[in-house]
Amino acid sequence: MQIPSILIEDLVRAAIKEDLGHGLDITSSCVIAGNIEAKAVFRARKEGVLAGLIPALSTFSHIDQDFEFDILAHDGDVIDEGQEIFTVKGNAQAILTAERVALNFLTHMSGIATLTRQYVLAVQGTNAKICDTRKTLAGLRTIQKYAVRAGGGFNHRSGLDDAILIKDNHIAISGGIETALNYAKDNSSHMVKIEIEVDTLEQLEQVLAHGGADIVMMDNFEISQLKTAMDMVKGKMITEASGGVNLQTVKAIAQTGVDYISVGALTHSAHAFDIGLDID
Amino acid sequence: MQIPSILIEDLVRAAIKEDLGHGLDITSSCVIAGNIEAKAVFRARKEGVLAGLIPALSTFSHIDQDFEFDILAHDGDVIDEGQEIFTVKGNAQAILTAERVALNFLTHMSGIATLTRQYVLAVQGTNAKICDTRKTLAGLRTIQKYAVRAGGGFNHRSGLDDAILIKDNHIAISGGIETALNYAKDNSSHMVKIEIEVDTLEQLEQVLAHGGADIVMMDNFEISQLKTAMDMVKGKMITEASGGVNLQTVKAIAQTGVDYISVGALTHSAHAFDIGLDID
Amino acid sequence: MQIPSILIEDLVRAAIKEDLGHGLDITSSCVIAGNIEAKAVFRARKEGVLAGLIPALSTFSHIDQDFEFDILAHDGDVIDEGQEIFTVKGNAQAILTAERVALNFLTHMSGIATLTRQYVLAVQGTNAKICDTRKTLAGLRTIQKYAVRAGGGFNHRSGLDDAILIKDNHIAISGGIETALNYAKDNSSHMVKIEIEVDTLEQLEQVLAHGGADIVMMDNFEISQLKTAMDMVKGKMITEASGGVNLQTVKAIAQTGVDYISVGALTHSAHAFDIGLDID
Amino acid sequence: MQIPSILIEDLVRAAIKEDLGHGLDITSSCVIAGNIEAKAVFRARKEGVLAGLIPALSTFSHIDQDFEFDILAHDGDVIDEGQEIFTVKGNAQAILTAERVALNFLTHMSGIATLTRQYVLAVQGTNAKICDTRKTLAGLRTIQKYAVRAGGGFNHRSGLDDAILIKDNHIAISGGIETALNYAKDNSSHMVKIEIEVDTLEQLEQVLAHGGADIVMMDNFEISQLKTAMDMVKGKMITEASGGVNLQTVKAIAQTGVDYISVGALTHSAHAFDIGLDID
Amino acid sequence: MQIPSILIEDLVRAAIKEDLGHGLDITSSCVIAGNIEAKAVFRARKEGVLAGLIPALSTFSHIDQDFEFDILAHDGDVIDEGQEIFTVKGNAQAILTAERVALNFLTHMSGIATLTRQYVLAVQGTNAKICDTRKTLAGLRTIQKYAVRAGGGFNHRSGLDDAILIKDNHIAISGGIETALNYAKDNSSHMVKIEIEVDTLEQLEQVLAHGGADIVMMDNFEISQLKTAMDMVKGKMITEASGGVNLQTVKAIAQTGVDYISVGALTHSAHAFDIGLDID
Amino acid sequence: MQIPSILIEDLVRAAIKEDLGHGLDITSSCVIAGNIEAKAVFRARKEGVLAGLIPALSTFSHIDQDFEFDILAHDGDVIDEGQEIFTVKGNAQAILTAERVALNFLTHMSGIATLTRQYVLAVQGTNAKICDTRKTLAGLRTIQKYAVRAGGGFNHRSGLDDAILIKDNHIAISGGIETALNYAKDNSSHMVKIEIEVDTLEQLEQVLAHGGADIVMMDNFEISQLKTAMDMVKGKMITEASGGVNLQTVKAIAQTGVDYISVGALTHSAHAFDIGLDID
Repeated sequence: MQIPSILIEDLVRAAIKEDLGHGLDITSSCVIAGNIEAKAVFRARKEGVLAGLIPALSTFSHIDQDFEFDILAHDGDVIDEGQEIFTVKGNAQAILTAERVALNFLTHMSGIATLTRQYVLAVQGTNAKICDTRKTLAGLRTIQKYAVRAGGGFNHRSGLDDAILIKDNHIAISGGIETALNYAKDNSSHMVKIEIEVDTLEQLEQVLAHGGADIVMMDNFEISQLKTAMDMVKGKMITEASGGVNLQTVKAIAQTGVDYISVGALTHSAHAFDIGLDID
Repeated sequence: MQIPSILIEDLVRAAIKEDLGHGLDITSSCVIAGNIEAKAVFRARKEGVLAGLIPALSTFSHIDQDFEFDILAHDGDVIDEGQEIFTVKGNAQAILTAERVALNFLTHMSGIATLTRQYVLAVQGTNAKICDTRKTLAGLRTIQKYAVRAGGGFNHRSGLDDAILIKDNHIAISGGIETALNYAKDNSSHMVKIEIEVDTLEQLEQVLAHGGADIVMMDNFEISQLKTAMDMVKGKMITEASGGVNLQTVKAIAQTGVDYISVGALTHSAHAFDIGLDID
Repeated sequence: MQIPSILIEDLVRAAIKEDLGHGLDITSSCVIAGNIEAKAVFRARKEGVLAGLIPALSTFSHIDQDFEFDILAHDGDVIDEGQEIFTVKGNAQAILTAERVALNFLTHMSGIATLTRQYVLAVQGTNAKICDTRKTLAGLRTIQKYAVRAGGGFNHRSGLDDAILIKDNHIAISGGIETALNYAKDNSSHMVKIEIEVDTLEQLEQVLAHGGADIVMMDNFEISQLKTAMDMVKGKMITEASGGVNLQTVKAIAQTGVDYISVGALTHSAHAFDIGLDID
Repeated sequence: MQIPSILIEDLVRAAIKEDLGHGLDITSSCVIAGNIEAKAVFRARKEGVLAGLIPALSTFSHIDQDFEFDILAHDGDVIDEGQEIFTVKGNAQAILTAERVALNFLTHMSGIATLTRQYVLAVQGTNAKICDTRKTLAGLRTIQKYAVRAGGGFNHRSGLDDAILIKDNHIAISGGIETALNYAKDNSSHMVKIEIEVDTLEQLEQVLAHGGADIVMMDNFEISQLKTAMDMVKGKMITEASGGVNLQTVKAIAQTGVDYISVGALTHSAHAFDIGLDID
Repeated sequence: MQIPSILIEDLVRAAIKEDLGHGLDITSSCVIAGNIEAKAVFRARKEGVLAGLIPALSTFSHIDQDFEFDILAHDGDVIDEGQEIFTVKGNAQAILTAERVALNFLTHMSGIATLTRQYVLAVQGTNAKICDTRKTLAGLRTIQKYAVRAGGGFNHRSGLDDAILIKDNHIAISGGIETALNYAKDNSSHMVKIEIEVDTLEQLEQVLAHGGADIVMMDNFEISQLKTAMDMVKGKMITEASGGVNLQTVKAIAQTGVDYISVGALTHSAHAFDIGLDID
Repeated sequence: MQIPSILIEDLVRAAIKEDLGHGLDITSSCVIAGNIEAKAVFRARKEGVLAGLIPALSTFSHIDQDFEFDILAHDGDVIDEGQEIFTVKGNAQAILTAERVALNFLTHMSGIATLTRQYVLAVQGTNAKICDTRKTLAGLRTIQKYAVRAGGGFNHRSGLDDAILIKDNHIAISGGIETALNYAKDNSSHMVKIEIEVDTLEQLEQVLAHGGADIVMMDNFEISQLKTAMDMVKGKMITEASGGVNLQTVKAIAQTGVDYISVGALTHSAHAFDIGLDID
């Protein structure tokens, strides 16, 4: 499902205002006559996965409502080096004013989608699914998590409010795994899942001994520990591996049989995907 | 100069609301008693440059006004692996609620500062200064450009409104270098600088022939071309190199004598800097 | 856990501005000298459950930062007719300016908490828990759901994003219970629960036949049907009854053994709880 | 006059965002294919007065601009049980996403309009007009007061800024009726009306003795006191009765001849009006 | 009564952000060391009436919370050339950053208050009161109308919602004075005053013949016409003169006995009052 | 270049809401039937320069999307007394609701443009250009600076962030002209111009001795001093005169040969330009 535009409009407007600043693209306004028309094409300069079409188009529409677009690729599409993404036709000043903001959306979101796909491809043939974390950039969580989906990944919880994740610090402060699990089960709504993080096999043992949770997150486990853990869990909980995941290690982790592998880098360290705008 | 807090408050609030969602950290609220106090320390897990202290502290203060902080490092400081950044003492629920949002600011901004410093160190011994671009993430330009300064870099223009940068597309649409330069000089305010991008030595020749600009940006020039260009310019304009800059190439570029080297990756592709929060 | 003040501040400010309109409490400003001090007490005029203290105090603090409060009851407390809730001491003009907005928060939220408690008391002695719905008033969901908790109720999902609830219309459009359930299981994140609404025992049969869901909502079931349903489910899913619930019917529903009873009226039809402000 | 859409847009957007939360209707998105079209009809499940059409339609348009509407009833219309209000045709996912928010506006506003009409009918045959108060819910005053008008009621003042209402506390603090009235007359703009609240016939006597006001509000008067009061006032002021008004008492109050009866319950305690959405 | 700070905060923040733009006072930041303290004094450079102290102080507090103020004059005070208004002591960079925004509030609002006082003094000895209009600048109505009061003037209605003013165009479109007056009386709330504009003595005659209004506004009447009008009205309505009012004509208008004279220039054409900031 | 509508929309919406207040134009709503159509024309009542068309039209479109406009003059046009600016055709209630807000934009912005043109005409035949300052009204800087351009003026810097202007207080605090200039040159970005204010010829001497700046602002210089100054500068810096500039003095200042003359009055003290709306 496309991201509803009502959820990105404020961000698009903020990004445009951030670039227009006190009020004018002084270069276009000084250098280019107001009545010149142009056609521009957005073109991938590498292979990757597209994401960000909606905010990119929305950027143009916020600058000038008379643009004509020709959309040649969609979010989630694998695009080749040189492939055209969309064209925009209209006032030349306005195209150049909108260019950078639109590109900033496209290159960031496609960067995330492209990195996600690399992880997804790396675990192909296993049952593991790749998911993101809450390690997102301020104000960008909705579009970053959307880009993860565009790249074939899954979303972990969206925020502090929509699932319970009992982490090491919660366990420490609340007084131990049993207490934490009991509190969580007694006080939470029936609509909410409970996940618990374990750092050792002993902790996993305790979780199992106290009735388990919906999901168990095994943080920074060695491959051999993960294998033992999977034998212990025996399908009684959904399993998730996290920590120390990169494109070199992810396949071995997946081969242990874990259900989900969560990767913070998808949203906090993705490189911009290279896209350029050429004037016809 | 510290970033004025009035300019980051809205972003901090947005980031907190984005994480609290419908209204509650259900994990802390279910698992941890409301009256427990704790002390937590933010600690670097690698060597790098710190940036983001103000939004991180502001995040905590927005969640609970009674926290006590002990600030042990400042923005712009080079910090070692394991070094403590600041401690926070207060309500345990509130610390865990604020943790991730504060970390997201610190790790992103320190990531930019750290990458910037790598470029700055790479050109040490030359006259070149490292600067950023407008390739920033939506809504984050002010804090990203601040992080570049924290890492020892300089800021290129902040937006479309505060300097003229005549790029390839402006030249093409306006009808050529001479026309573009004349328009820019005739129509712009006296308070604004004019920079022009050239892609070839021929274009540089034309710029010089038509009176020059305040700054010339040489885009994607070979090292040998840059050297020739520097001989042509002879100090009549400030020189800036851009395009194809990375940590492998930047030193050679700097050694050509250019005044500035602009690097988009500082803001669009920096990796998160690894910082953790430990509960005492 | 108290509602974090960052989540109610915007609403408090909006409510004050809505009342101040173009800018002034013209009555207080015309009639009362600016230097008069007064002390006022908020007092319950009926028995009920208190909720709304934080937005009420916040209202006063937004009008004048020098008020002194004496807090005599807390959210979730059962309060008697005539009981004092809090006192405020300070500038008389400012007290009268803030009065109505503060009361509007207190009476609405305490009204919800009081109604919730009536339902909770009505099912005492059974295992049933009372919960709310998404039938909330525009912009007030967070404070309304908080008031339900203050009254001893539980929250159903907070929005469209934090749990799957397959309702009659989803089943109809997607092509039936099996399809809908399969789609939900295949496409959703592991962090999200799945609930399905059934209107008949036949539908419940189908749900059970196709692997069930985390929760089943039995909508508008007769008591006898509910009993049969509970026998069919045998604890394989969490059970929830909805539709036609009121203070007369809720006990019999609870006695069928359902786990949760959801009541839209808690948030869409609660009466204001009567609280008055008396000047000492 | 219809409520200008500029005044409800922010509320509609807030209500949608409150329901979409972190960004997606996960049920519709998982369960229903993106290309299915549907037609839905909003239908009254009781008799009452319609209000809220504009925010309901606006909700749909904010989710998807391609919906087609067929409007079958208007704000202020008396509608029968089973009567169709409007139909919406378009993308099935989007209809289900918008459903609850649109219903929340319709059921709340129609609930107020319906309750208002019950009061208006109860005083039919007298000269009394029914009006509302400032006892409204945070952020909803404009739409609640509009709903009162849709139900045939009148609006009392909109806020603290548009009329003077000297209440018991103002009288007490300012030093008495004479002082308060004099201050109000001397300091207020000529564009503003002055109303004074009296709790006893003695106070009414004083008000009359000191030149009266534009309107006198008789708070919690017995029917017999109201009759005496009307004889005393003899048309020299507009009269308003308040306090202890309900559907049982309102007729007798009206028959005393008072001009206006103000009813807080219209906005703070109206029940939701039952409206359902059926998919064709 | 002071303007409640909740009503000016958003404007103060907007004005600061408008001046800081992309994020920094680059002059102070480059030129002045971060640890220098200074003391500055705001001083009138002419005689006039002060207004704007609250937004000026608020500007400083938004830039730096550690400033110390010494307040030497208050809104509404007549101040002499050279008189000190307030001093501010604290960080030198921050003082220079806040200076212009604070001055822009003070000089604009004091300009309005000073002009208002000139009109008030011009009609001294008559019964006429000076009032403003809705001819205000976008977003500034609340502070402009406050400044009029500081200068000794009165406020006309605040907006379209708080009083009825039937103007020439309303009369023309509705079909004449009788119709317009009847509609207004039948359809308006009892809390609202009705004013009608007349352009001729004939229209005034009609207004009187049809029962009058609360206030009559005589627009662009000659002095002799005003005198005749006052004889016709004989105190049955409040009288207001408007149109063609300036400091030369206002006394003669006032001497006709009109109750109010409304002056658009107070808010749309006041000159800035000259105030400077000197560093000690 | 037209002001991008994204930059004025928030201001237009704020101005409308400021006028509608609690929600309704009660005059139009009471007095005029909802189905009447009308045509109105905006007409200049003096000679001047038009500015503000976009916010004026936007005001109407925000009230009612069905208006038809006929645009007869454009921003920057010199218009005669009586000349028609634009006509609007549509719902009569809506026209009268929008009238004042639209007029407030047109009269303020055209007032600035008209005053600017008077200065521009006064210096015709010299090389001097007229420019504005940061002495603007809160929240209106973007539209005020646009209006200056419409009147033929130039914009000085837009805010504290886009150019360095070392003023008397900066010099005093930093320790003198040499220090200030050196700091500015060392610490500023290459994209930013540096201007320095001098109050005496001695200071100008020092500026020249220490390498000059991009621009020198001579504040409150006598004509004879300005002439001497121009001889000293000899084209080595751009020159700007400020202080004590009015329509009587500006020509003599211009004749000294200065490049720019900055005039605070353009934005802080312009009179509203007289425009009326007539209903056909």
